[in-house]
Amino acid sequence: MTESVEIITIGDELLLGTTVDTNAVFLARALGDIGVPIARRATVADDADEITDAVRQALHRTGGVITTGGLGPTADDLTRPVLAKLFGRELREDPSIVAALHALWASRGRGGPLPPSNLQQALVPIGAEVLENAQGTAPGLRLTDAEGRWVIMLPGVPRELRHMTTEHIVPWLAARGGGTVLRSRSVRTTSIAESALAEKLGPLTRQVEGLPLAYLPGHDGVDIRVTARGLEADDATRRLDAAVARIQEAVGVYAYATDGVAMASVVLELCADRGETIAVAESCTGGLLGARLTEVAGSSRVVLGGVIAYTNAIKEQELGVSADDIREHGAVSEPVAVQMARGVRGMTGATIGVGITGVAGPDGGTPDKPVGTVWIAVDVRGDVCTSRAIYIGDRGEIRHRATQVAMDLIRRALITTI
Amino acid sequence: MTESVEIITIGDELLLGTTVDTNAVFLARALGDIGVPIARRATVADDADEITDAVRQALHRTGGVITTGGLGPTADDLTRPVLAKLFGRELREDPSIVAALHALWASRGRGGPLPPSNLQQALVPIGAEVLENAQGTAPGLRLTDAEGRWVIMLPGVPRELRHMTTEHIVPWLAARGGGTVLRSRSVRTTSIAESALAEKLGPLTRQVEGLPLAYLPGHDGVDIRVTARGLEADDATRRLDAAVARIQEAVGVYAYATDGVAMASVVLELCADRGETIAVAESCTGGLLGARLTEVAGSSRVVLGGVIAYTNAIKEQELGVSADDIREHGAVSEPVAVQMARGVRGMTGATIGVGITGVAGPDGGTPDKPVGTVWIAVDVRGDVCTSRAIYIGDRGEIRHRATQVAMDLIRRALITTI
Repeated sequence: MTESVEIITIGDELLLGTTVDTNAVFLARALGDIGVPIARRATVADDADEITDAVRQALHRTGGVITTGGLGPTADDLTRPVLAKLFGRELREDPSIVAALHALWASRGRGGPLPPSNLQQALVPIGAEVLENAQGTAPGLRLTDAEGRWVIMLPGVPRELRHMTTEHIVPWLAARGGGTVLRSRSVRTTSIAESALAEKLGPLTRQVEGLPLAYLPGHDGVDIRVTARGLEADDATRRLDAAVARIQEAVGVYAYATDGVAMASVVLELCADRGETIAVAESCTGGLLGARLTEVAGSSRVVLGGVIAYTNAIKEQELGVSADDIREHGAVSEPVAVQMARGVRGMTGATIGVGITGVAGPDGGTPDKPVGTVWIAVDVRGDVCTSRAIYIGDRGEIRHRATQVAMDLIRRALITTI
Repeated sequence: MTESVEIITIGDELLLGTTVDTNAVFLARALGDIGVPIARRATVADDADEITDAVRQALHRTGGVITTGGLGPTADDLTRPVLAKLFGRELREDPSIVAALHALWASRGRGGPLPPSNLQQALVPIGAEVLENAQGTAPGLRLTDAEGRWVIMLPGVPRELRHMTTEHIVPWLAARGGGTVLRSRSVRTTSIAESALAEKLGPLTRQVEGLPLAYLPGHDGVDIRVTARGLEADDATRRLDAAVARIQEAVGVYAYATDGVAMASVVLELCADRGETIAVAESCTGGLLGARLTEVAGSSRVVLGGVIAYTNAIKEQELGVSADDIREHGAVSEPVAVQMARGVRGMTGATIGVGITGVAGPDGGTPDKPVGTVWIAVDVRGDVCTSRAIYIGDRGEIRHRATQVAMDLIRRALITTI
């Protein structure tokens, strides 16, 4: 039998909007993948009565609740005592957790003895199962009542929660018996508008292989997601794979990846396969292209490095950009982007050089070159292609989009040459 | 009278966890600041029945609902027709929205005529108020029933939602009469553990000025948040300001900013005030320090640029790092970080040079230098300070923490010299 689960995320910071609730989405994805639907999601404050009420109601509705947050060492961490009380259990200090806390403190080299407030994390309700937290100090806890209703308490630190979900929660729920799955795949596109995509897909706009489509625009472009709901696992996989292939065919060159794969990974793999190396010369993006490329593990096989050329002096002295061209065409111009790309290739010996120069805003725009204007040049062994666009959005969005297009230009240059 | 509001975010992608719900937090913050509490937050699928049910129930409970998402041009965008039906209104094409859609399409230079699917966005329920969307295609809508209960539909694209919230929603709700406020401020700290902060705060650990504290650990360090609830606006402001000052005094040099101010902004302002300029030399962070510094508008007054020195060859040739030192001490070592910082100062003429070299992982660690080991050097006009640490986390976290510490070293170097 498939059981459904409610998620209760605890923390004033979530209700006040000071923190984005990434834990709820991580749990939704992990549980959806094993066919455990999320019946409801709620957020409550760091308040004993509110936590008690929310968990009591959720237990009544679905019999299975995962809470996140409120397990730390400070006074606003209430989850442990509040839920112990709800289940009618005393708290007792667990000597093995105390020992682990002392060991972790020492290993991190903070110096001095363990601050006593940390020992709050060693209190365990009688009869609770302790879920090891390999990434942090506060262990998770599982309490089950006489009717078999359960609550799992996870810490709010995303890295710890993710690890514990994968290690403890997913195997435990999967072992309780799954059924049909709720699963999705997606085709990632860039440099094409949502409505133009819909026109390209034509009769597939609404559904493919009997599965519904959704369009998710983001900074990297539009992701087309296809979802299988209420199917057996094998059937879902087969139809999702077929749907992805048909969408890719309809979308053509605009489709750069599937599922969660980043553009940087696509570009690095193409380069590694073909023995290409990359160097970047960045003005308005200030290192962001380098940062995005090197975010990928193993990128050092392809990325050599580059120059952050925020000033004209660095463009001229380090990259050999012509001062005359800067004077004549401006720093945000095609010749400057091209010379930056060529210059950084020469400097580093990379086979591919990228030059980016633009107006990221909010100031510095002119009628001729409004905020968002960016010139990008990609030089692949001497063959140069360029792009000029006016990106819409704030400074962060303009810079992010420019680096996405720069990587897409490398990708297109490589897939269109044999 | 203060009314409370429910937020319903619509989209399979939110339930499935493919997208993080940043809209709900933005709304929570904007409404909290004018004293309008969020009574409940719910997330529903792109499904007509679920949207209808959720909105009907929320209207019954609180009488005021804000929905996000489902207003776009594709088949999964259901909010407009579903809520028109719930309110018993026909949909009619609005000629001024049609004209605006054509104009926007043309101005973005997509080429060709407007795809017809876009015209779905021009349908307006009779009697609805149209809320202009200056940032995108789909306008917002407000429907009010005979009993004065209302629903506001906002688009799901975060940039558009943020703009419309500020322009339309906040002034409208504020004009309906506020009362007490729910407001918070925070003190941002870095390079200190949560439990060590609690010890430093001593008697202030739980509350300051009668206001409760919360500790929010993140990649930038731990933010200490203080919250005022149910107070008049003036009283809240006075007590929050006093609390922030007391926390800052207790925490000392670890407190680098308040509220949402980024470390990069703090560093850039210090540098601008003192006439300092920055150049970066990055190995394992691959441009991320440059990217974070130049994320701030106006950073070109301080940041000159730098070198992404992913390979040893670039470290030697462009930054003058001694090949002997790399052989003897390894690329991840104090002398290499110091020479990178000095080299990039010399190359660019900056007054401050930063060198970062480390093992970001997941591979490349050794018993001597495990994954997470990072050496950072900051050279301020020839005075050099260095830091070695082993950062915990994945590749992204290690890189982020290293750039945070690099900026903190600049900050500390500047505030401890007159």
